[in-house]
Amino acid sequence: MTRAVIPSFHRQVLDGRLPDWLEAEWWHDPEEMVALAPNAEIGWFDLHQKPPVLQSIALATQMRWLNTAYAGVDWMPLAELDRREVQLTCGSGLTASQVAEYAVMGLLAAAKGFPDIVRAQDRAEWLPMPPGERDLAGSRALLLGYGAIGQAIGRILEGFGVEVEPVRSKDSGWRERLGSFDWIVMSLPGTEQTRGMIGAEEIAALRPDAVVVNCGRADTLDQDALVEALAEKRIGGAVLDVTTPEPLPPEHPLWSLPSAIITMHLSGIPTQEAHARAAERFLRNCALFREGKPLEAQVDLVRGY
Amino acid sequence: MTRAVIPSFHRQVLDGRLPDWLEAEWWHDPEEMVALAPNAEIGWFDLHQKPPVLQSIALATQMRWLNTAYAGVDWMPLAELDRREVQLTCGSGLTASQVAEYAVMGLLAAAKGFPDIVRAQDRAEWLPMPPGERDLAGSRALLLGYGAIGQAIGRILEGFGVEVEPVRSKDSGWRERLGSFDWIVMSLPGTEQTRGMIGAEEIAALRPDAVVVNCGRADTLDQDALVEALAEKRIGGAVLDVTTPEPLPPEHPLWSLPSAIITMHLSGIPTQEAHARAAERFLRNCALFREGKPLEAQVDLVRGY
Repeated sequence: MTRAVIPSFHRQVLDGRLPDWLEAEWWHDPEEMVALAPNAEIGWFDLHQKPPVLQSIALATQMRWLNTAYAGVDWMPLAELDRREVQLTCGSGLTASQVAEYAVMGLLAAAKGFPDIVRAQDRAEWLPMPPGERDLAGSRALLLGYGAIGQAIGRILEGFGVEVEPVRSKDSGWRERLGSFDWIVMSLPGTEQTRGMIGAEEIAALRPDAVVVNCGRADTLDQDALVEALAEKRIGGAVLDVTTPEPLPPEHPLWSLPSAIITMHLSGIPTQEAHARAAERFLRNCALFREGKPLEAQVDLVRGY
Repeated sequence: MTRAVIPSFHRQVLDGRLPDWLEAEWWHDPEEMVALAPNAEIGWFDLHQKPPVLQSIALATQMRWLNTAYAGVDWMPLAELDRREVQLTCGSGLTASQVAEYAVMGLLAAAKGFPDIVRAQDRAEWLPMPPGERDLAGSRALLLGYGAIGQAIGRILEGFGVEVEPVRSKDSGWRERLGSFDWIVMSLPGTEQTRGMIGAEEIAALRPDAVVVNCGRADTLDQDALVEALAEKRIGGAVLDVTTPEPLPPEHPLWSLPSAIITMHLSGIPTQEAHARAAERFLRNCALFREGKPLEAQVDLVRGY
């Protein structure tokens, strides 16, 4: 029997459907996860809080496969997992459509000044003129990052009639064209190569009405340079699902910049549908794991995503 | 020469491009529009305020073609125009994409509870969990009205992976399936047939989490029945670009219903791009008018749209 340590959250979907070579131990809270970790040959360690997950990984010395429903794994000890020959599967793609929907909602809100409409409604005030007048139809978007999330954003924006230019992290040539886009939509993974990919120089090259949307890793965007550009109205606005740090402290200037929309890393918190997809993928991966085949959404531990 | 009375707003685009058989007289304000109206063989009467437009129509006894950049013309004396043999062209399609973008923005905001995110940002508060968790991907939308706006909404929603069912005002059979949709998106013209098309009975047939979006004519939806259903939480929410009356008075219950989003008929106020499209269409219609051909976006004065 192979012992798997699994969040009890998924028990309803998984019970009775797990393979017979697998013995499940269910954890209900972080303490129980950490306590069961040493038994785990398969470990599904999934929490908002990172310390108990890192502790569980350290304790799970028998682990051969580590699973998480989160897409970003740059905070995990990837080199150590590689050395210990642990396979890692992540939530890549599971929450892609919900993250993409959030990103496009933010982009639309920035285009139309929707936050000001909400504020007017709260004052019971009928606005005579729209606070924002930008059309998505006929506009141009640069998609920095073209994994599952970037592709989903691209499909959605094309439905709006936006001209979309996708860029993968290794592509070049897009920097010269930065000034030609209405929207810069970032969904980059966190790696050495992507850190600070949009910095002061790139921001200076943007159109004065350009809007930057980041729903990837926070550190792919130079936040200080962005805050400065927004404060000086050198660009049109920003939609940040991710920030440095998280949570953003109450005194941070981003909160009150009129052209910044902060969505508090809510985009990636798995919805019911995403949780169900995670459980279904785990079942498919159990079969692949048993057969010694490559797993679905397996992380390249050297590349880091 | 044919005398045309035209908003000076469009002079920059039209000057030097009008045909030589046309003599333009430009109006700068409602008073000038009314004063010039008796000269008009072609009248472009375009204002937020309806009384000066109605007055100009009454005075323009030589008029053979009346143009407006607005899509809805149910408030015009259509029978009288028909009797006077005046051709009427409207703004149908010119603002369709911007109205559709507004409708989808409202739908997304309702799905994710975006107004609560805006309010949290205003309090500099990092929300730990999303106020709304509904995915568009995999959901189902009924499109009541399938003119230029409905078609644009359909294209956009399909990009999100929404299953779309379009209904034209004369179609039937959709009533029996009302309980199967996540989103009821209305973009109906104002006619005898469409008035109250979604009333108390239809609302009662909706799913408890269904969201009604209206970006067509206000009276196609029974607003009192809707307010009651929202207050009693019998449906999930509503996004109203149009209301009865407009503007909505400050004491109206719609303003403060937590599941209602009011966008103050801002969707259809022509953006710069839409104004440019209106001028270009006017030029095309000048040529068609001269040749005695049917005009682009010509209103069927009996059908009413």
